[in-house]
Amino acid sequence: MAEDEVLLPQGTLIGPVQMALLAASGQGEVLARTLPRVAVISTGNELVEPGTPLIPGQIWESNSFMLAAACRRAGATVRRHRLRDDPAVVLSTLEGLLADADLLITSGGVSMGGEHDVVKAALSKLGTITFRKVAMQPGMPQGFGVLGPDRTPIFTLPGNPVSAYVSFVLFVQPALDALKNYSPQRKPSAEAALTQGVRSPRGRRSYLRGVLDDAQETVVPLTGQSSHQLGALAQANALIIVPEDVTRLEAGEGVDVMCLP
Amino acid sequence: MAEDEVLLPQGTLIGPVQMALLAASGQGEVLARTLPRVAVISTGNELVEPGTPLIPGQIWESNSFMLAAACRRAGATVRRHRLRDDPAVVLSTLEGLLADADLLITSGGVSMGGEHDVVKAALSKLGTITFRKVAMQPGMPQGFGVLGPDRTPIFTLPGNPVSAYVSFVLFVQPALDALKNYSPQRKPSAEAALTQGVRSPRGRRSYLRGVLDDAQETVVPLTGQSSHQLGALAQANALIIVPEDVTRLEAGEGVDVMCLP
Repeated sequence: MAEDEVLLPQGTLIGPVQMALLAASGQGEVLARTLPRVAVISTGNELVEPGTPLIPGQIWESNSFMLAAACRRAGATVRRHRLRDDPAVVLSTLEGLLADADLLITSGGVSMGGEHDVVKAALSKLGTITFRKVAMQPGMPQGFGVLGPDRTPIFTLPGNPVSAYVSFVLFVQPALDALKNYSPQRKPSAEAALTQGVRSPRGRRSYLRGVLDDAQETVVPLTGQSSHQLGALAQANALIIVPEDVTRLEAGEGVDVMCLP
Repeated sequence: MAEDEVLLPQGTLIGPVQMALLAASGQGEVLARTLPRVAVISTGNELVEPGTPLIPGQIWESNSFMLAAACRRAGATVRRHRLRDDPAVVLSTLEGLLADADLLITSGGVSMGGEHDVVKAALSKLGTITFRKVAMQPGMPQGFGVLGPDRTPIFTLPGNPVSAYVSFVLFVQPALDALKNYSPQRKPSAEAALTQGVRSPRGRRSYLRGVLDDAQETVVPLTGQSSHQLGALAQANALIIVPEDVTRLEAGEGVDVMCLP
């Protein structure tokens, strides 16, 4: 490099080669944005750690493991927290986490405004978080806002695991990219032919779980499309996007497909 | 899931959703292959840590930072080691690392068999490692073999940083994928039109550093294609592949391009 030449322009993501370039030019320290620090919170008195026996009324906690792993894969450092259903506990815990987190994610407790919606109850008082029903399926109940002096973003995702994951991909992943100061990496999308017909509720954009073939020509809609059915999501490599004004598509019709990370 | 249904077939990569499926079904522990553990070793009395002043004859060490970061991005856990130029030290250190590593990578010390090729000198006695000149550019001097009772794979990459990185992408990355027990993820490749002509030595396949446009239609060969010129590699998003029997290509000609991770 010539003297005064710019090694790396501002905003460059420091990957392996950029790291080598900095090292080879003797830079022992650089001023850089760190990886986003995320706190993942799950609430619910019914949640039990996997590996522990259940008693009636309990379920094994899974969302916080899923969301923490998804954040790590997206290049964030993550801590996982499980809280009981108590709005005061939820609020004070969230406030305590603000010092060490760049982004907060909750799952569950925001569905319909019932007595079990502790996250919504805890956060609604603050006035900086909005809860909405988004015209999509899965993932209708969503909340987003900012907390604390640094206006730390918080996503309150739905509790059903498939809804939570689809919401993560659509909403949280781009926010993590923005925190890393680079343009959201849009996953490669394709148009493919359905191998069988699908239905979708009027007025909602559906994100159905599917398997796209390697040539990205055909996509198989999986069975088990309810928002609690993780089995189909675990087999899927793509989301089939059915526009909000379409209620059915026949086998052979072309459809937009979003590849899952 | 129905009783006796298989949650995840053997060989499945455990991503966020698979993790959730295991958790939701109460599995507190599963028998799974861990992420590969890699030891990255750089040798050379002339190497100095970045941030430290140089005296004549010294350079700042960069390869081990680059290779460690590339391994981490490929899903491995990594430890970095810097050794002085002493075959006995190199050999005993490598042997000591075998207990905790699934794969070893060295860079440098394998070029031409001269007195400074300490890695080659240390390993040649073992008879389980082969050193070759591969008909490529950059990255001609390569070594590969296995070490110790577990036949731990070792890659001895060239010392020039561009050569080391191209070799990592072509040879080590697929090996890391194999250690994770899933098929190597071939990076998307494209055919694109050169924006200007390039030359390549007869008998060697060239991997030139280039910038592929978003539409993957044209590729710009970067200036600074020597194997020590990290600046061009840091700008590149693709390798331009010139076949071994081709010595020149003109602007506008189509060429195979490999996207860099």
